Amino acid sequence: MTGKPLTGKLHVVGLGPGDPMLMTPQVAEIVAQASDIIGYQTYVARVPLRADQNRHASDNREEIARARNALELAQQGRRVCVVSSGDAGVFAMASAIFEAIETGPDEWRALDVEVLPGISAMFAVAARLGAPLGHDFCAISLSDNLKPWDLITHRLRKAAEADFVISLYNPISKARPWQLGAAFDILREVKSPETPVVFATAVSRADENIVIEPLKDADPERADMRTLVMIGSSATRAIERPGGAQWLYTPRRAER
Amino acid sequence: MTGKPLTGKLHVVGLGPGDPMLMTPQVAEIVAQASDIIGYQTYVARVPLRADQNRHASDNREEIARARNALELAQQGRRVCVVSSGDAGVFAMASAIFEAIETGPDEWRALDVEVLPGISAMFAVAARLGAPLGHDFCAISLSDNLKPWDLITHRLRKAAEADFVISLYNPISKARPWQLGAAFDILREVKSPETPVVFATAVSRADENIVIEPLKDADPERADMRTLVMIGSSATRAIERPGGAQWLYTPRRAER
Repeated sequence: MTGKPLTGKLHVVGLGPGDPMLMTPQVAEIVAQASDIIGYQTYVARVPLRADQNRHASDNREEIARARNALELAQQGRRVCVVSSGDAGVFAMASAIFEAIETGPDEWRALDVEVLPGISAMFAVAARLGAPLGHDFCAISLSDNLKPWDLITHRLRKAAEADFVISLYNPISKARPWQLGAAFDILREVKSPETPVVFATAVSRADENIVIEPLKDADPERADMRTLVMIGSSATRAIERPGGAQWLYTPRRAER
Repeated sequence: MTGKPLTGKLHVVGLGPGDPMLMTPQVAEIVAQASDIIGYQTYVARVPLRADQNRHASDNREEIARARNALELAQQGRRVCVVSSGDAGVFAMASAIFEAIETGPDEWRALDVEVLPGISAMFAVAARLGAPLGHDFCAISLSDNLKPWDLITHRLRKAAEADFVISLYNPISKARPWQLGAAFDILREVKSPETPVVFATAVSRADENIVIEPLKDADPERADMRTLVMIGSSATRAIERPGGAQWLYTPRRAER
């Protein structure tokens, strides 16, 4: 209708860790209604696209350019869906979208932007293992692309002293090969050598691989870009099962 | 068939924060297949039950009795589904199930037990606000029913020193009326008085209510048993929108 302003919409959604059965119905519905799907190519490839939907797949390191592109399309009246793996708000695209809005043209603040949550990797991993996140926990990105390494080591020390269960996102990449080993060294200064360390790769996908080893032996080489690393608290422990399997859990009860 | 052992199954599932559109298809399927649904009465009431399904609803404080009941039913060959709000592994029933297994009869270790993740409250809250969990964060239960208060204060201090975004689960109850105010006092010793504090009650449900106020004014009376309290990091900030609304987000970039 003449004179009616364009009413675009921007959704920022979390697809979950990989298995479509872990994607919320809310996200599935919004993805189906979108005119434009935007994201890192690996995540965009996970979404079944119809012929009338546009795909905008980009490289992993271009978050702000991707966010601006999404906002421009919404401003033009498109129904835009930015997809992330896991939860969109956890070391993913939601933060980049708001950074782009804050530093962009004023009109972007009037756009209809909505974030939809998803199952973040650490919860899918925890469920597979038992209940290692059954008590207080934290999540730290090990990437020093956007924060200084000494802030990361500061947080690792405080998290170890707090005796949190610690989930490490972005543990390693080709450009960041030594940081995970350095993180284990810091944790070894505070935590017991027997603390369980979980390397969970591609959880909920066909090539899922989970390895648990004590902190004293934890080998950074077990991680790749698709790995979530989880380090137990002092209370996290294994329940041995018949046949050599085990569950890992952190009791609800805790002592100082 | 004669001689065939009973093959019961125990699922421990997270229903998400309330809106059925936030429940994973995996959980919906397992709930539909269960012979017995077990949980806190408020959560069991959320599940649509068929005439051939048994409901075992109990009071909030009976986690271990409930866990044992679930394990006994699975041992008898039933398909049992223990329901929690949010994610089953986050301050919910999964940890109680494994505690019951560890301290129970050896046969329980052979049972087929599977945990299915859900959307935990802090992610539903974060999505509503923008992206406050866009950087390193932690989750702490403020309940001192099962851990000493001085462990909680120790963790609060370390979390504040680490400059995590902090989510407080179980912030208050009739039996624990003063702990949230004491927690704010501790955080005020470390964090800026302008740090945003979010009180998010019944998120994703019809009576959802979200209030944001600076730490210096944060009023514990705003919280009840259905409230998730979130405290920003030093980088968490608001983007003002036309009409007085705002988004809250934590940038991906951080400085020490």
